[in-house]
Amino acid sequence: MSDRKISQAVISRLPRYLRYLGDLKDEGVERISSHDLSLRMHVTASQIRQDFNHFGGFGQQGYGYNVDYLYEEIAKILGLNHKHTLVIIGAGNLGQALANYMNFERRGFIILGLFDKNPNLIGKSVRNMEIMDIREASDFIRKNEIEIAVLTLPKAGATEISKQLVDSGIRAIWNFAHVDLELPDSIVVENVHLSESLMKLSYKISQESGEEI
Amino acid sequence: MSDRKISQAVISRLPRYLRYLGDLKDEGVERISSHDLSLRMHVTASQIRQDFNHFGGFGQQGYGYNVDYLYEEIAKILGLNHKHTLVIIGAGNLGQALANYMNFERRGFIILGLFDKNPNLIGKSVRNMEIMDIREASDFIRKNEIEIAVLTLPKAGATEISKQLVDSGIRAIWNFAHVDLELPDSIVVENVHLSESLMKLSYKISQESGEEI
Repeated sequence: MSDRKISQAVISRLPRYLRYLGDLKDEGVERISSHDLSLRMHVTASQIRQDFNHFGGFGQQGYGYNVDYLYEEIAKILGLNHKHTLVIIGAGNLGQALANYMNFERRGFIILGLFDKNPNLIGKSVRNMEIMDIREASDFIRKNEIEIAVLTLPKAGATEISKQLVDSGIRAIWNFAHVDLELPDSIVVENVHLSESLMKLSYKISQESGEEI
Repeated sequence: MSDRKISQAVISRLPRYLRYLGDLKDEGVERISSHDLSLRMHVTASQIRQDFNHFGGFGQQGYGYNVDYLYEEIAKILGLNHKHTLVIIGAGNLGQALANYMNFERRGFIILGLFDKNPNLIGKSVRNMEIMDIREASDFIRKNEIEIAVLTLPKAGATEISKQLVDSGIRAIWNFAHVDLELPDSIVVENVHLSESLMKLSYKISQESGEEI
């Protein structure tokens, strides 16, 4: 079954299901009903069943879901059943923070290189990786067939560098630069615009304060 | 006019409008039509007009929007017309990266304190702020009437600490911990779950590869 037509909303919910299922696994729970899962996750059981029905349902009615099986199936849908290789472009604070974040590796996201243009950073060691000169990034990506580039750069250089990365064979960009990249449709882009998230927070605070606009 | 009933989808688009308007200001553009803005932003002019109509429209038909005015009005809706005070709870790599990120300050988000429980971090200086003992956080929040706590902690301690923060008077939590916080409805929570974003990226890569599930 292809899931090409599954809505973004459903897909967006899958990582959260995976997180709760991981917790259940850690607790040694083997089976869970949609009702019990709904209580934990504060969503309706009917939403859970509807979401899972997009993928064939995963479970037996009245018997509950097998936690291990459900976990593995959702991981597979999310492409977590094989390893992904990454480079980080921009080894400032955020780039280094992401490089040090072990959880990504546990999920199969393997960071193989870290690049910057700042001579003060090049050669410095982060988690046993030496920060390389950004001019070496293209060769490195080609040689190691890197799949994903993490863009943790200021806005100014991001657009131009994203094009070079794509020319070097990168298939996806996890973009933290505060700019909309314009790349071929075949390139996957996932944006994390932290400032925009903070603005949504401040909007909600205004609303809670009952401010009028 | 109150905007209590405006959909989350519209609100989510406001920071992006603000970013493009900021760019236009930087370029010295004084007026822009919904058509020209739509070409830049790759959305339809009708979407822009619809979005802006929720707030009274902002502009004259056929005459275009005044860029400065529109920028200020959207900033006001997002609660950016006054300063917000923050503390960062968890001064590891990500916490330090956020503390060092100057752009937040430019937007009026002022980081006043940085806390951790790790004795190796306490006393260390980050951007002229000394990392404080997390046990001092509650007092600090009360004394300085801090509005927002940034939670950059491992999952394990996050839930308990979030409750202490709320008891100390925090009104909003920008949550990077990989857990759903369960707090009173009056507390604003905005989640940034980086692992989930990375999973969405890997899902899209699987789709691009034409993999079947």
